[in-house]
Amino acid sequence: MIDGALLIGGEARQASDRFTAVNPASGDTLSPDFSSAGIDAVAEACALAEAAFPTYAATDLAARAAFLEAIAENILAIGDDLIVRAMSESGLPRARLEGERGRTVGQLKLFAGVVRQGDFLDATIDPAMPDRAPLPRPDLRRINLAIGPVAVFGASNFPLAFSVAGGDTASALAAGCPVVVKGHPAHPGTGEMVARAIQQAVADAGLPAGVFAYLPGETNALGGALVADPRIQAVGFTGSRAGGLALVRIASERPEPIPVYAEMSSINPVVLFPAALAARGEALGKEFVASLTMGAGQFCTNPGLVLAIDGPDLDTFVAAAATAMADAAPATMLSPGIHASFEKGVDALAGHDAVRTVARGKVGEGVNQAVGAVFETDAQAFLADTALSHEVFGSSSVVVRCSDMAEIAAVIAGLEGQLTATLQMDPADERDAAALVPVIARRVGRILANGWPTGVEVAPAMVHGGPFPATSDGRTTSVGTLAIARFLRPVCFQNLAPGLLPAGLRDDNAWGVARRIDGVREGGSR
Amino acid sequence: MIDGALLIGGEARQASDRFTAVNPASGDTLSPDFSSAGIDAVAEACALAEAAFPTYAATDLAARAAFLEAIAENILAIGDDLIVRAMSESGLPRARLEGERGRTVGQLKLFAGVVRQGDFLDATIDPAMPDRAPLPRPDLRRINLAIGPVAVFGASNFPLAFSVAGGDTASALAAGCPVVVKGHPAHPGTGEMVARAIQQAVADAGLPAGVFAYLPGETNALGGALVADPRIQAVGFTGSRAGGLALVRIASERPEPIPVYAEMSSINPVVLFPAALAARGEALGKEFVASLTMGAGQFCTNPGLVLAIDGPDLDTFVAAAATAMADAAPATMLSPGIHASFEKGVDALAGHDAVRTVARGKVGEGVNQAVGAVFETDAQAFLADTALSHEVFGSSSVVVRCSDMAEIAAVIAGLEGQLTATLQMDPADERDAAALVPVIARRVGRILANGWPTGVEVAPAMVHGGPFPATSDGRTTSVGTLAIARFLRPVCFQNLAPGLLPAGLRDDNAWGVARRIDGVREGGSR
Repeated sequence: MIDGALLIGGEARQASDRFTAVNPASGDTLSPDFSSAGIDAVAEACALAEAAFPTYAATDLAARAAFLEAIAENILAIGDDLIVRAMSESGLPRARLEGERGRTVGQLKLFAGVVRQGDFLDATIDPAMPDRAPLPRPDLRRINLAIGPVAVFGASNFPLAFSVAGGDTASALAAGCPVVVKGHPAHPGTGEMVARAIQQAVADAGLPAGVFAYLPGETNALGGALVADPRIQAVGFTGSRAGGLALVRIASERPEPIPVYAEMSSINPVVLFPAALAARGEALGKEFVASLTMGAGQFCTNPGLVLAIDGPDLDTFVAAAATAMADAAPATMLSPGIHASFEKGVDALAGHDAVRTVARGKVGEGVNQAVGAVFETDAQAFLADTALSHEVFGSSSVVVRCSDMAEIAAVIAGLEGQLTATLQMDPADERDAAALVPVIARRVGRILANGWPTGVEVAPAMVHGGPFPATSDGRTTSVGTLAIARFLRPVCFQNLAPGLLPAGLRDDNAWGVARRIDGVREGGSR
Repeated sequence: MIDGALLIGGEARQASDRFTAVNPASGDTLSPDFSSAGIDAVAEACALAEAAFPTYAATDLAARAAFLEAIAENILAIGDDLIVRAMSESGLPRARLEGERGRTVGQLKLFAGVVRQGDFLDATIDPAMPDRAPLPRPDLRRINLAIGPVAVFGASNFPLAFSVAGGDTASALAAGCPVVVKGHPAHPGTGEMVARAIQQAVADAGLPAGVFAYLPGETNALGGALVADPRIQAVGFTGSRAGGLALVRIASERPEPIPVYAEMSSINPVVLFPAALAARGEALGKEFVASLTMGAGQFCTNPGLVLAIDGPDLDTFVAAAATAMADAAPATMLSPGIHASFEKGVDALAGHDAVRTVARGKVGEGVNQAVGAVFETDAQAFLADTALSHEVFGSSSVVVRCSDMAEIAAVIAGLEGQLTATLQMDPADERDAAALVPVIARRVGRILANGWPTGVEVAPAMVHGGPFPATSDGRTTSVGTLAIARFLRPVCFQNLAPGLLPAGLRDDNAWGVARRIDGVREGGSR
């Protein structure tokens, strides 16, 4: 079922350069070995994507939606082999990966619905006013068109939902863009299985083969060449800050710079408001550690920072968190590299003069295991050293003891951009929260109350984004239906003959999409 | 009425560094002299803008709309002094400036309507599903929030409609963003009059004074400091490619990079299709020169490139264009600097081995006058030297003789991004046009048929944008209602108490905006 191929132009092909994947739970090398795509393959895949673009971008909405659904069906048809392979490559447990497969398939189907509905086209018509004085108004029609071929970089922490057929691929294909995936080297077998499912859907739909290519590899040169290729028009990336910034730099130095949607780094502050802390400090401490250690803390939305006013109620929270963490089982991390980075980050915090180690998790026997960590410091120390606000990817978090709400606000205002902020609050805290929400809203993509930031709903109202460096473009989201907007650009057609207009702009509105006509929204199929 | 002040914090203040404006029609220095704002003023204006942001961003839609309308009324109330001053500073004729004033006022009123309507908020609600299995869905609500203080750089070629109270300012204020304007040194008196009108509207509305500041000046350091200021969150710019790219570089090198919306450079290809050329080559030649020479060619959408198949019909067009150009009156350009750049660009084309000068316009007696120019070359020469596709700002255009439609397509595919492309076509050309439109759509923001690209309607369906280097961000427009989107970012609120939600997301929908609820669009006041 997998043989280490790269997938290009409808074919499976072996490259002479090879790499292997490691089972992080055992440290063993997995078979088979995999093609490491070279820059010649990048050029070929991008040329095919460019050649496929006009046809694919012009697919009608129903056909494009059916294609997305076929990808979903093909992924399900792989069956348990996909789950077993993903387990061996990621160290993630079965239930998590089964859930992630459901999310992956659900995202594809959600975007199929978005495509059918057609709101993403933002079709807008200003009819001609031939008799307007002093000048007539021409017939103006605007619609969102696909931006062009898109490069997608799979993430290590979601080998299904944010990898080969993940949110970036689903939204780019939904927008009408061919996709060239740079496969993540940590889960190449999982990647190849999914890539073959997409390649089959392309063939079955009778689409040009260039609509999709899969280039596994482990070199920076591969990713760099992909972003630099002049045919690529946008980039989706989830991963490290260093990796994302490197791609942003390459994209900005092209003769024609292109947008890079990199989701990079976030410590996701949690504010414990006084009344909530007084009422349920112990329960919050337990819940916090449960969120922190879930999936070995390998979530972009992991709660890496807790802010509260110092005092006995915070002591209660910290004590409960310490107890919970001391009892937390070790968990295999996604890769030896991620484990090494985690250890390094934790060691730096543990050795910091202004930081106290509250608790560590249990130490296990296996390799690449995260031993969770809760630290604490005070606001003045936190504000004095930006190193304390750096993300440590994994189950590590810092509790910051603040003197009052104003100091909490100062800490938040001084933070870099974040994906999320969490408010643990009771009704009596609403006044304090009302003062803080506008400050928080400047720094984040999502504010949530009385929950935990891990767990990102895939829905129309979701924003999984945020100001730099949470992402490289805080005007967007990488999760939820709005993600499609990243791969679109508006084009205006003035006085064009009906036969030259995109279907969504013709008078007959054969696609039945909602349109804004002379400033007033009309119709739509739902 | 004007005394050369910079306007900051609700006050008018004189700086010790001064500069003067020149009447381009006479070369004379105009009085008074003007404050050249220093970087201390930048820091102060940005601090005030940041302080004003929470209050201004939270204004209700009706109040914000009324504020925009008050600016429009205040500009009208300046009366003829504004037109007279703008004439003396720009060399533009009265009728043009009166029209531009109408457009400026109309834009402000249009954005007032956009604000009242509220569609720009894109309010989206996914209600909680507490009983969903396996996990409940939280209550998710998404809305567009203002991005923060915005820096606006006035353009020289629209001293009213794209300057102090122009499209960038109107759309940023409509989005809820305070604005710091870097005044253009070519029209500082005009700028100050308009800035005082805005400042008065801020005071009358009881808004924080930091909502608006006006910093005239002529140094690059001023603009650079403004873009680099950490309080500024987005930049609107219309001007030269070099200037725009300099601002993009500064913005990308900030610790927190920010979006720059720079509208920079375009030669606006016009394709003369065979049947149209055969039927009306002579008329097209005349119309072309009329569009080319309008306003001394000082439009971003000036037709700087004409593509057609070589032959007798194109000879007819070129001959008519030559006759019209030979008869074209010289016109005063906006500034000595623009005039010098125009002369340099025209000289480079005239001296190019592969270029023939078809015709020049009449030479006048005055200073800073553009003498129009039509050149011709062939497609192979054009493709061989990118210098031939550089914008010459002013009434200069190159006719490229192509061997067939495929060569026209090749020239277009090889162009940099453009604001517009124009199709001169008859019904018999529709098949050729249908093949070309998808190629053109990749390169431009607006495609128009059987008109001329100059004249940009301010309307919901307009796109005045396009791929790099037409703009620095091809996903947007700087003209029309969609321009507001440049200054917004989405934020999601999850399970927040009603009192903590923005008004547009509360259940009572007091603003009466259209919302998407569980994926289905509902309501709205219009």
